[in-house]
Amino acid sequence: MSKQSLRGPSVKKIPEGDDRERLTCPDCGFIDYQNPRIVVGAVCTWEDKFLMCRRAIEPSIGKWTFPAGFMELNESVAQGAAREAFEEAGVRVEIQDILGMYEVPQVGHVMIMHRAAMRSPEFEAGPESLEVRFFTWDEMPWDDLAFPSVKWTLERYKDVMGQTDVACVSQVAEFKSYS
Amino acid sequence: MSKQSLRGPSVKKIPEGDDRERLTCPDCGFIDYQNPRIVVGAVCTWEDKFLMCRRAIEPSIGKWTFPAGFMELNESVAQGAAREAFEEAGVRVEIQDILGMYEVPQVGHVMIMHRAAMRSPEFEAGPESLEVRFFTWDEMPWDDLAFPSVKWTLERYKDVMGQTDVACVSQVAEFKSYS
Repeated sequence: MSKQSLRGPSVKKIPEGDDRERLTCPDCGFIDYQNPRIVVGAVCTWEDKFLMCRRAIEPSIGKWTFPAGFMELNESVAQGAAREAFEEAGVRVEIQDILGMYEVPQVGHVMIMHRAAMRSPEFEAGPESLEVRFFTWDEMPWDDLAFPSVKWTLERYKDVMGQTDVACVSQVAEFKSYS
Repeated sequence: MSKQSLRGPSVKKIPEGDDRERLTCPDCGFIDYQNPRIVVGAVCTWEDKFLMCRRAIEPSIGKWTFPAGFMELNESVAQGAAREAFEEAGVRVEIQDILGMYEVPQVGHVMIMHRAAMRSPEFEAGPESLEVRFFTWDEMPWDDLAFPSVKWTLERYKDVMGQTDVACVSQVAEFKSYS
């Protein structure tokens, strides 16, 4: 059997002892269990300014977001959010608390959004950002935000400003494709 | 190449455009991206009683937990927690709010724990439970709980009893193997 003829996990099948279909490899039997993925993000601020990144990658290339991305193994959600801020905007932040969760079940994303304080006002665009800059609330590019989750989280930030012990709300989104 | 000689995703390699090692299949090139998984659970109550399940599966077989399990695609965290309560204990519950998150980075688990009210006092052990029963707080089998996350969540429940708008705390655990 040549490498070209191998198909990887491509056949839907209910594995023994399971109760739903999973993608399995018809050649080696590997089962690709797909579960929802966690996106960790942080609204990063310095004084009254919000740090925003213009995306260099799809989806929503050229649009604005605060730093966020997929959580990796061997990190906490807070550590993941701080890592994304460093990777996308070159900033060191102190994660303060959780603003809420934004869920998109149809694509299997659970986004855990934080508040974070920048340790200094310096920043630098990472490889996944075309540009990074500060916006005050009034300057925010509302019409050019990358995703509804960005808008929801910024509004949530504003709603609970000055509060501690922020309640853990979860917003479940209607699905819309951005590709 | 026979089926027996195929190895599935078994070789650690940094995929093009990525920055960390992933398990890849040396035969077909499939990349097995492993990300943290979400466990959804709910402290389910009826009057002053807590619904607990004795686990029929490893890890911690024979030990007690409230209903919890891996979140699936195409559901919200609240829907997942309600589904687990139905699968493991045969109960219909109304998910009320989030008590907090319990994280175990070393095994890539992020547990999102809820409060839930049972719609009736009926229940029935599902296939993953040896037994399901009510305990009052004073009867709780503290020495036979399945995981530290179960104890943490029950204590959190007690701490915020009577409160609404519960703050979203996250507890990051030290790792301990239960196998």
